[in-house]
Amino acid sequence: MTTATDARVLAHPTRDEIRLENVLHALSDPMRLRVVRDLATAEGDLSCSYFDLPVTKSTTTHHFRVLRENGVVRQVYQGTAKMNGLRRDDLDALFPGLLDSVLGAVERQAQRLGDS
Amino acid sequence: MTTATDARVLAHPTRDEIRLENVLHALSDPMRLRVVRDLATAEGDLSCSYFDLPVTKSTTTHHFRVLRENGVVRQVYQGTAKMNGLRRDDLDALFPGLLDSVLGAVERQAQRLGDS
Repeated sequence: MTTATDARVLAHPTRDEIRLENVLHALSDPMRLRVVRDLATAEGDLSCSYFDLPVTKSTTTHHFRVLRENGVVRQVYQGTAKMNGLRRDDLDALFPGLLDSVLGAVERQAQRLGDS
Repeated sequence: MTTATDARVLAHPTRDEIRLENVLHALSDPMRLRVVRDLATAEGDLSCSYFDLPVTKSTTTHHFRVLRENGVVRQVYQGTAKMNGLRRDDLDALFPGLLDSVLGAVERQAQRLGDS
């Protein structure tokens, strides 16, 4: 875990510290899957406020923290905004094909349940 | 969910009721990943007692229940033994490639961490 000496530098696991079971946990929630899907198709990083999730602001913050602490997203401050990027390089290096199969499953389920 | 009128018939979600986020939750634990890995390579169903997990018996029972209730394994009684089988057909139909990518990631992580 990178040490967050500055309160504005957020702690992240290094690539070596990322664990499959933790990544699966981070992905095991509909709101977090929605965030990951949006980040996967975004051109660049997206701020937390970009996401209009049907949950409270504190729950949204919680979801982003779970994604960050388990190695799925990288969060950096830009001014007062927290910017989020998918750690695709790290995840693809550690678990080839996993992220793409999860993203495919997200799309498929959205179509099946009619809530894409 | 199939109704368990007989206490010895265990409740399972139907294929339509299986949700991606629940499957990922069921897989987000090292013990449950170990069970799924063993079931994936087994010739047939395996009894709960086949698995010698380094946890208590009640925790083992809990792990199997999580796997069953989220649609990852099918459990049936044979005499006094609970037999477990991976619901590969259902999972592959709903989320093509997902199970195989998780199983590949399990192997890769075991090799990386030297605990295969």
